[in-house]
Amino acid sequence: MNELSKALLEGKRNAIAKALSIVENEQEGARELIKSIMNKVGEARTIGITGPAGAGKSTLIDKIVQEYRSRDFKVAILAIDPTSVISGGAILGDRVRMMQHTLDENIFIRSMASRGEVGGISKAVTNAIRVLDAAGFRRIIIESVGAGQLDAGIIKVADVVIVVFNPQTGDSVQAIKAGLTEIGDIYVVNKADLDGAEKLYYDIKDLIVDKSEKIVLKTIALTGEGIKELIDNIENVINKKHSNYKEVEKRRIEMEIIDRTERIVNERLKRIIQSKYGKYIELIADGKMDPYTVSEIIAEEILR
Amino acid sequence: MNELSKALLEGKRNAIAKALSIVENEQEGARELIKSIMNKVGEARTIGITGPAGAGKSTLIDKIVQEYRSRDFKVAILAIDPTSVISGGAILGDRVRMMQHTLDENIFIRSMASRGEVGGISKAVTNAIRVLDAAGFRRIIIESVGAGQLDAGIIKVADVVIVVFNPQTGDSVQAIKAGLTEIGDIYVVNKADLDGAEKLYYDIKDLIVDKSEKIVLKTIALTGEGIKELIDNIENVINKKHSNYKEVEKRRIEMEIIDRTERIVNERLKRIIQSKYGKYIELIADGKMDPYTVSEIIAEEILR
Repeated sequence: MNELSKALLEGKRNAIAKALSIVENEQEGARELIKSIMNKVGEARTIGITGPAGAGKSTLIDKIVQEYRSRDFKVAILAIDPTSVISGGAILGDRVRMMQHTLDENIFIRSMASRGEVGGISKAVTNAIRVLDAAGFRRIIIESVGAGQLDAGIIKVADVVIVVFNPQTGDSVQAIKAGLTEIGDIYVVNKADLDGAEKLYYDIKDLIVDKSEKIVLKTIALTGEGIKELIDNIENVINKKHSNYKEVEKRRIEMEIIDRTERIVNERLKRIIQSKYGKYIELIADGKMDPYTVSEIIAEEILR
Repeated sequence: MNELSKALLEGKRNAIAKALSIVENEQEGARELIKSIMNKVGEARTIGITGPAGAGKSTLIDKIVQEYRSRDFKVAILAIDPTSVISGGAILGDRVRMMQHTLDENIFIRSMASRGEVGGISKAVTNAIRVLDAAGFRRIIIESVGAGQLDAGIIKVADVVIVVFNPQTGDSVQAIKAGLTEIGDIYVVNKADLDGAEKLYYDIKDLIVDKSEKIVLKTIALTGEGIKELIDNIENVINKKHSNYKEVEKRRIEMEIIDRTERIVNERLKRIIQSKYGKYIELIADGKMDPYTVSEIIAEEILR
């Protein structure tokens, strides 16, 4: 175990930041780092929070963090903007200004941008969770910032998914369009003191898929109303869903391995096709073969 | 050659609609259909149109279609909503109501939803273009509807990419965030009679990457102002870029083959990992191996 892993396991903030950068960018040392902490992880639980822009996610998360701190949990936030190609720094600056808790060393906030690579972010998030887990954070909030939604890969690494709505923005229709009515464990009507909150609450109850398993709550993040109840419900979902956490973890590792292996294989595939299969491209361009058949032939030849 | 292919090559509307459904859903018959038309395609040119929501894309496209019709081109529109999981029908209904040209049989409009599958839409679009090409459409407009942007795969199949902006919505900042300043051949400031149009025009001139190759234009789609100039510029780009169209086509086929082969291989990979590599998942879960090494081992074992 090297210096960095040791400092990380002690929860040193600069070690956490450095380790996150290494795994996020898949820099040299990422493999050794993850290797050295793999048997130190498994205690953290992850809470994905998503919803349309303007739903009040940031304020809600501030209050969730406060509540978890009062229950003595170390809490980390991964703020993810799936639509942004801006470097993490800029978003982080905004977040830091917004948070009241930045001097509390049991809170850690980190922004991650997707850099436009499809699927890239979910691999980075998986390892970022391991780093924060190893550093002793027991609740990790994965937040979609901006107008973007959390992508499917990230949803899969969240132990609980919360979808937040705002009564004033016609969210119910947008929610259906974005597929939000399928992914949540807990649906939150935030700004519940505003006009339309009751209607939205019942609309969501109607819309959600698999009604018996889902919870719909009202909060007013600004005043903290409903936050304790929300946290109680989050903890209930965590306890119910993860009575056998080892199995959950194994399924996630399997997903990760499929992902990583696909990336290696796909890169190899691309090079092989470009260097070796020009004749097939010619035949297709001349109308003598079709893309379906050619792809099947190449797949057969490449796989053992 | 079967009935459907024959009717398609004659430009029969119901055959076009049916063929599009078949390739879009990769139904049975897709392979035979594409095979039978592969040597009948290559004349159509594609125009991708994207930009932030509210830029006035729909009205602009209406006018582009009118102008192309007056120049005697058959024109098709593929309206793509990358964020939507709604079935094509709903969007299509809206579009049909909007278009003045639905009785003109030299115009064909089709909606495609992404169904949430990453990359899935670009394969479908590639074959939809072939179908429309075979049916005699010479200009195919690929439009992003709603707030979503055209994805990278679709941008790659467009011969010309147009990015449309609205002076009134602070688009320049949003454009940078969305990476729009890199992808266009032609940038259009629509609603050029509104306040801020001049400023936006010069902002975009400043922002765009690779300035010498790019064109910035002003239009007022509502009155048709600037449309003729826009079409002239589109045609110029098409002529300049594609003096050797065969090579362009080959590069696209290569991309498609890589895509299709990846999908076959990745499906196989997933099954193999799930059935054969459980021991590695265990070892990782126990902290005895790391995901990087395991993925490399599996990739080695699977590839020839």
